[in-house]
Amino acid sequence: MDLQALAQANPDHWSKATAIRALTLDAVAAANSGHSGMPMGMADVATVLFEKHLKFDAANPLWPDRDRFILSAGHGSMLIYSLLHLTGYEQFPIEELKNFRQMGARTAGHPENFLADAIETTTGPLGQGIANSVGFAMAEEMLRAQYGQKVVDHHTYVIAGDGCLMEGVSQEAITLAGRHKLSKLIVMWDNNSITIDGPVSLSDNTDQVARFKAAQWHVIEIDGHNPDEIDAALTEAKATDLPTMIACKTHIALGHAAQDTSKGHGALTDADQMAEAKKAYGWTSGPFEVPADVKSAWEEIGKRGADARREWEERFDKMPRHKRETFNRALALDAPKKMSATVKAFKKQISESAPKMATRAASEKALEVLNPILPETVGGSADLTGSNNTKTSDLGVFDVDNRGGRYVYWGIREHGMAAAMNGMALHGGLRPYGGTFMCFTDYARPSMRLAALMQIPTAFVMTHDSIGLGEDGPTHQPVEHLAISRSTPNTYVFRPADAVETAEAWEIAFTSKTTPSVLSLTRQGLPTVRLEHKNNNLTEKGAYVLADAEGKRQVILIATGSEVHVAMEARDLLQAEGIGTRVVSMPCMELFAAQDDAYRKRVLPGGAVRVGIEAGVRQGWDQWLLGERGKFGKADFVGMDRFGASAPAEELFERFGFTAQNVADKAKALL
Amino acid sequence: MDLQALAQANPDHWSKATAIRALTLDAVAAANSGHSGMPMGMADVATVLFEKHLKFDAANPLWPDRDRFILSAGHGSMLIYSLLHLTGYEQFPIEELKNFRQMGARTAGHPENFLADAIETTTGPLGQGIANSVGFAMAEEMLRAQYGQKVVDHHTYVIAGDGCLMEGVSQEAITLAGRHKLSKLIVMWDNNSITIDGPVSLSDNTDQVARFKAAQWHVIEIDGHNPDEIDAALTEAKATDLPTMIACKTHIALGHAAQDTSKGHGALTDADQMAEAKKAYGWTSGPFEVPADVKSAWEEIGKRGADARREWEERFDKMPRHKRETFNRALALDAPKKMSATVKAFKKQISESAPKMATRAASEKALEVLNPILPETVGGSADLTGSNNTKTSDLGVFDVDNRGGRYVYWGIREHGMAAAMNGMALHGGLRPYGGTFMCFTDYARPSMRLAALMQIPTAFVMTHDSIGLGEDGPTHQPVEHLAISRSTPNTYVFRPADAVETAEAWEIAFTSKTTPSVLSLTRQGLPTVRLEHKNNNLTEKGAYVLADAEGKRQVILIATGSEVHVAMEARDLLQAEGIGTRVVSMPCMELFAAQDDAYRKRVLPGGAVRVGIEAGVRQGWDQWLLGERGKFGKADFVGMDRFGASAPAEELFERFGFTAQNVADKAKALL
Repeated sequence: MDLQALAQANPDHWSKATAIRALTLDAVAAANSGHSGMPMGMADVATVLFEKHLKFDAANPLWPDRDRFILSAGHGSMLIYSLLHLTGYEQFPIEELKNFRQMGARTAGHPENFLADAIETTTGPLGQGIANSVGFAMAEEMLRAQYGQKVVDHHTYVIAGDGCLMEGVSQEAITLAGRHKLSKLIVMWDNNSITIDGPVSLSDNTDQVARFKAAQWHVIEIDGHNPDEIDAALTEAKATDLPTMIACKTHIALGHAAQDTSKGHGALTDADQMAEAKKAYGWTSGPFEVPADVKSAWEEIGKRGADARREWEERFDKMPRHKRETFNRALALDAPKKMSATVKAFKKQISESAPKMATRAASEKALEVLNPILPETVGGSADLTGSNNTKTSDLGVFDVDNRGGRYVYWGIREHGMAAAMNGMALHGGLRPYGGTFMCFTDYARPSMRLAALMQIPTAFVMTHDSIGLGEDGPTHQPVEHLAISRSTPNTYVFRPADAVETAEAWEIAFTSKTTPSVLSLTRQGLPTVRLEHKNNNLTEKGAYVLADAEGKRQVILIATGSEVHVAMEARDLLQAEGIGTRVVSMPCMELFAAQDDAYRKRVLPGGAVRVGIEAGVRQGWDQWLLGERGKFGKADFVGMDRFGASAPAEELFERFGFTAQNVADKAKALL
Repeated sequence: MDLQALAQANPDHWSKATAIRALTLDAVAAANSGHSGMPMGMADVATVLFEKHLKFDAANPLWPDRDRFILSAGHGSMLIYSLLHLTGYEQFPIEELKNFRQMGARTAGHPENFLADAIETTTGPLGQGIANSVGFAMAEEMLRAQYGQKVVDHHTYVIAGDGCLMEGVSQEAITLAGRHKLSKLIVMWDNNSITIDGPVSLSDNTDQVARFKAAQWHVIEIDGHNPDEIDAALTEAKATDLPTMIACKTHIALGHAAQDTSKGHGALTDADQMAEAKKAYGWTSGPFEVPADVKSAWEEIGKRGADARREWEERFDKMPRHKRETFNRALALDAPKKMSATVKAFKKQISESAPKMATRAASEKALEVLNPILPETVGGSADLTGSNNTKTSDLGVFDVDNRGGRYVYWGIREHGMAAAMNGMALHGGLRPYGGTFMCFTDYARPSMRLAALMQIPTAFVMTHDSIGLGEDGPTHQPVEHLAISRSTPNTYVFRPADAVETAEAWEIAFTSKTTPSVLSLTRQGLPTVRLEHKNNNLTEKGAYVLADAEGKRQVILIATGSEVHVAMEARDLLQAEGIGTRVVSMPCMELFAAQDDAYRKRVLPGGAVRVGIEAGVRQGWDQWLLGERGKFGKADFVGMDRFGASAPAEELFERFGFTAQNVADKAKALL
């Protein structure tokens, strides 16, 4: 590349873009780790985006109607940190850049949404950002339909690399965006032809332009170092009625000795090469120094949106009060006032009528009363609507001609659904929930982990949660998936035993602000076990005494979900023999673990043998069976230690020992 | 559809295809569950494929040079069961079809490779079959290069549905196939425009033809009910030098009242509608009955390949003896004779030189000596070759002009890599291993589970296995991933402490026949802890005493991988205070669990406090800390109960308590 020609063609642009490159080199050198090449290659694109197109106000990073900027190629985190510093975000003084990748800094190795207001999403696992962005863009459409264009009218801009586009989830994302004509979604592809292992051609020869067109996108191809082309492409992208992909041909690590090589992807820390690169840029400032005129030009960009924001506030204040309140309440993730009473009434009605019902059906019934009072919920399913019971009567279907619809037919895209739901939650103003078979937690898993890490309350509706799925067989029967979700920090895993616990789980999921929920629900019908109405949400305690021992307490049976009624029947058998038996229902281990010692000891006191019952692996159970410090004595577990099989559900439960008799026998063997 | 016209145009074809439709209706009705529509829609395509193109011999389902037939749309399992019955496979008498989806039957809800020889792979989780098929086709290319076209020369045929094509993994698969010009891979897309939730258009409007072309495939569009078009397309597909996708326009549930509807996807059991459909087909036989002439015509098809198979055997017998032996040994998954001595020599050299080395580097060194004696290994990485240390000097790179290359640059496709590796293992004759960062177990997870379910020895090389990854931060730091892999039945999770254990883990992984392996390897350097050479593979026991207590045994420290040397240092501190301390290294919990009681008690006797140390979550550890029946007393755990953070590794280990002093303090607090 002839850097001098680039610099001379547009000196103002060049100095601004070079500031990003220089800060990137400095921060990576200080950290002695990181990824230099991508910010250096995409600095021109990002500069034009921020200078001329992105609607933002650095002084108000949480302005609800800001454009969203998503760095899907999250390893290039110095790009966003440089931009946030240069444009004057308060949370990004130069000290943060000097502390790049150090303990406690906002400038983590990859952008972390929970560390700074202006970071819209956590990226790094490739493909996640672009898949989140579909949810951001859907959320904008939905909220615009709900509140009007005067208060919701913004774009979602994404920078994605070859890695993002090779990941399968990107296909799920772009086909969703194409199907729904998300015209305010604009993806800038950093087409630098380099991956870690070498040239892209080593592993891929996809025609990305044709691929995006096949997914019904508008595509523009440009020189990613030409500010005029970048500007024109962004202008064109905003004018189309399709999502737009701008293929930006760039040079990774522009101007460095490692330019256009896979070495350029990583940490460029050689002092001499850094000096040479800066010299080639015409950059004479010291490390972490930006010339005053350049910094000032960037700060002007940071203030560019201030007027628009003030005008927006005026428009917002003119909205009817109830709309403003709902908007603010949804954004704050506060529950509506009616929530508690609605759940109580539902529970009371269930305890009185005591239906036999699958918890997936119970979930639908609970959603049927909750969705009407929660305009912020968005339901959906990965092509299992009738099986996941996620669609309630009032939602309407989100579509090109019905942006106010609150139900999404996600198609056979579990991963894309989970990532897009995360995007909706991150956007703010919506509470997404979506369903698939619990076994396909596996497909959604990368985004489920990120929901937990990002501290957002996405709700995953996982039905057909055991061998109770029956004939579809072991590929569809979860065995280890409760353990998998429970192993993940900051995740509520609910396995309700009946319709009452299901409603309680939904109440918690829909009031959670920083923790995602997994609802593990049955295919098969279950009897109501909560026959006595309680106003309190017992599931909130994680576990509680469902039926106490009559006489001396010799046995405690601990069960979840579809095995709670088995425990109750086993209790009948044991009590009939004079063996005092307590049944503890444990719908949420994480919430039980969060209770104080005294409560936990009240529910699970010593001096009795314990049997755990759950149609899944034992992993995660020993803490409740054996006691947290091993103080407790004898225990056993009725569960699965192998994959399931294809057969009718009742035969499988019998075959694998989920019978009252087997549970009673196991308990007696311990006595 | 005018069924009569179809029948009259080609009566012989029609009766054969109708046999599939009739058997499907009968079996689904008998099971009262299953998926009727797909087999009914794709019966014509499958009939032509089996009759005129597929190279197979029903009497010899394991003939190594057979064409592979993969039903990626696995829910349509009655298609393959019908075909296997009709063509005369011994394992599929009519009784099996009558027992469709019942306990113990080979005719499981979805095709299970471990239930019948002729089922090449387990499908049902959508997208897996088509992604497996890339590995099948790569394996064929590799083995052809290795053994010659006279003994390896076959095609891989796939039937995939809209669900397979919507799943992201399909994009990873098709772009891999396109990049590598896998011309013997032929995908027949069941283009029926229907998903469970409704028409495909509800959730997708991708131009699949353009998409495949963008991935460098040859594409043919046909009427999937016209046998001449099907035949011509298959002929054309075999002649191209690109992978081919045949878009077969079909009618789901052809001829049934539910034709062309989402209802047609599921179980069509209404007796009247069944009768009407059969009438429309002109099918007058009773349930599970096939007219003798039709059955006989199908059986002739089943014998069509017998001559070719015999000729193949003659050619095979003419190969040099050492090639035959290697071929058969690799197919049988037997280890070469040199393996044991090679591993011993490697271990001895390590114990003597005692290097400080990351286990990922140790893994490379072990592979460097193993790959030359195992021509069946195929290495690879999802674009992290230099980080995963999976490439050894002699492998060569698999490419269009180097089919003998044994290393695959998988690109940024963890899921596609895992699924294709499974395909290679299923094909037979190869032992695939492939790497990514351990955190991205999440991406590969659906295929890792299937490797375990399918009982194949795929090896997953998961480096950067803890917060020891450092600055890249929590998106890249596994915390729960050891627990996730351990929760999965039939999976070996190895976390070696040094180069000796790493070599032992590879020896087990490369001799395993029915269990996949996960190798959890460090980024950071570790001291050698196995300083005394042992010929025996101690890792095979799962856990063993690395250093025994001096004096009275008061403490047992149990650790894995990078925490074993911390345990050794903590032991020094404790012994210095006169506290007798044993250190147990536990590189594989699953293998330790498989030992007899006596051995486990010898390694972990009672009468001492226990501290577990692992830079991951506690889940899965309590069984070793608290004893399997809670008989053991006091224990504690040094691990992670939250996500990590972005900072240098040493600071993170300090911050989260992975220090000898903290471990010693925890132990003393228990005394």
